[in-house]
Amino acid sequence: MRVGIVGAGQLGRMLAQAGSRLGMQFNFLDPSHEACAAEFGKLICTTYGDAEGLFQLAEQSDFITFEFENVPPRAVERLAMQTPTQPGALALATARDRWAEKTLFQQLDIPVAEVRKVDSQEELAAVVAKLGLPLICKTRTLGYDGKGQKRLLQESDLANTFSELGEVPLIAERMVNFSQEVSIIAVRNHEGEVRCYPLAINEHRRGILHSSTPAPEHPLNSMAQSYIMATMDALHYVGVMAFEFFAVDDQLLANEIAPRVHNSGHWSIEGSECSQFENHLRALCDLPLGSTLSREPSCLLNLIGARPDYQALLAIPGVHLHDYGKQARPGRKIGHITLTASNSALLNERRHQVEELLVNDLGDL
Amino acid sequence: MRVGIVGAGQLGRMLAQAGSRLGMQFNFLDPSHEACAAEFGKLICTTYGDAEGLFQLAEQSDFITFEFENVPPRAVERLAMQTPTQPGALALATARDRWAEKTLFQQLDIPVAEVRKVDSQEELAAVVAKLGLPLICKTRTLGYDGKGQKRLLQESDLANTFSELGEVPLIAERMVNFSQEVSIIAVRNHEGEVRCYPLAINEHRRGILHSSTPAPEHPLNSMAQSYIMATMDALHYVGVMAFEFFAVDDQLLANEIAPRVHNSGHWSIEGSECSQFENHLRALCDLPLGSTLSREPSCLLNLIGARPDYQALLAIPGVHLHDYGKQARPGRKIGHITLTASNSALLNERRHQVEELLVNDLGDL
Repeated sequence: MRVGIVGAGQLGRMLAQAGSRLGMQFNFLDPSHEACAAEFGKLICTTYGDAEGLFQLAEQSDFITFEFENVPPRAVERLAMQTPTQPGALALATARDRWAEKTLFQQLDIPVAEVRKVDSQEELAAVVAKLGLPLICKTRTLGYDGKGQKRLLQESDLANTFSELGEVPLIAERMVNFSQEVSIIAVRNHEGEVRCYPLAINEHRRGILHSSTPAPEHPLNSMAQSYIMATMDALHYVGVMAFEFFAVDDQLLANEIAPRVHNSGHWSIEGSECSQFENHLRALCDLPLGSTLSREPSCLLNLIGARPDYQALLAIPGVHLHDYGKQARPGRKIGHITLTASNSALLNERRHQVEELLVNDLGDL
Repeated sequence: MRVGIVGAGQLGRMLAQAGSRLGMQFNFLDPSHEACAAEFGKLICTTYGDAEGLFQLAEQSDFITFEFENVPPRAVERLAMQTPTQPGALALATARDRWAEKTLFQQLDIPVAEVRKVDSQEELAAVVAKLGLPLICKTRTLGYDGKGQKRLLQESDLANTFSELGEVPLIAERMVNFSQEVSIIAVRNHEGEVRCYPLAINEHRRGILHSSTPAPEHPLNSMAQSYIMATMDALHYVGVMAFEFFAVDDQLLANEIAPRVHNSGHWSIEGSECSQFENHLRALCDLPLGSTLSREPSCLLNLIGARPDYQALLAIPGVHLHDYGKQARPGRKIGHITLTASNSALLNERRHQVEELLVNDLGDL
């Protein structure tokens, strides 16, 4: 089977690593010649919207998927007419637009923080008058890792918000006093069968994911499962989806979905019976879904901006290093570690040892 | 780090899959344009003895290793002068020659079945007169998967043995009435530190490995460990070695060593904290050795000559499929399955389900 992936970063790379074990071959489309997945297949080096490039990708592949959701929806529709493509245009169009996303959540009775869309600086003033402060403004599209966001804590923060965020459509959302950031990963196949990984507790630093720890015993697991299943069903979703929430007391407030494999599920490579990467490919290629049960306690730690001392790191048992083969730059995800251990106490002990060694460079705010 | 591998079959492929996670890049030398590891790096397509090709491989790599031991020892010495190369020429020369191997075992007081070298049909008659029948004759070099062997059960089997086996130097070995075939995999680094995986129980069909099941509780573990450690020390060995034995009551008789990662250790990819592939690369590249402890019960089943129904196979939980991307031919290893389960009873249950699906074509005797 030949799988075409739009995007050839670390997610494409880990998809290819999982798929190569199943005998699959990979084609990528990515604008960068240095894209780190390219060594695992053929690279069509062009922009995500290039019709000719997408046509080539579809021609050379039996199935198409994405590691990157910001693809023009028309391009997705064109791809899908030529070659089976998942997730579909509806899921991508919803996930890439924060307002469409929030609207869907509300339709599905999934709680969200109070939110309005904002198309001008004037509208922002009106929204602030209605919702009060503090608020967080986010661009409707193209935001990631805390980029394209601005916090409005006091009246004086309002000025120039619209121009600072690039004169693009925004949402303004009431800031949530959450106790935890959590996410859930699930996979859905063409028949509508869904399998969920355990809820993971995520820790961000300067808006970038620092760690993710699966918590199969977390009391909010079943609530998160029902929300992601409703969302997947509504979008006729096929493949892996991630859903990020704010946990507030015993409730979940929906933050956003990602229509793809997700950083907060990377621990599944070693931690689960079947990883999110393999399960995404299984769903895409109409193979039976794999078990999402955990093999033993695990967690993920990201390597950001700089590599730690690998000699010291690899001396710690249970360290599974994933170096993406990317040049280090401040704020850039260049690898991750999955830690595994036979019990949670040992996992924590190992985690402290690893955290001591991390030299992450998160870059400027 | 750039790693050069002599040979680009499935062992090279799985080395590259393990090493790419650590950020390593791979070059291969192999005579076949269709070599299945080639998609994970650059392929120098030439014979194993080609001086110019080996020079190129060494030039493009920081470390050199082998997935294939039948490389001319002179070529190995030349490689090692240019680029750090492990295992060394002594280990390769010993492992590729059954007589050198048996001689070493005897020097190290590792029990072997009674054995003689045989350089002519006349010598064979003399050896039979001395040792009696049944005997098994094997070519000193280039044998694998039961090839290059002949069983002498009665006097009439003797005729033409030497010519049938290709007029090459042989050994003749007393046939062993063994209760089990077992093997142990270990890794040794430059400082002489050794870590052993658990003893595995192997099942062959027509001379080809069918299954391998790690048995950490097997009473012969410590004996096997002491034999492989003595052998590695004697050969100043660096990297992963496999040692195959016949278990006879509570004793081990040495069969042979393989100076490389080995089919009977493939379960370590999912079954161990650090796989044989990653540990071989760690030893080669002077990184700390990884833990060889088992994560949970596991076993390996080979896919030989034909692919089973992947739809049915992947529906069984705990199945980790490795398809090598090779064309199926009778007797050819084209993939394997690692099965994992949280306990041995469940592992056996899953194993029976998998065995039902296998359609292995072992070819002619």
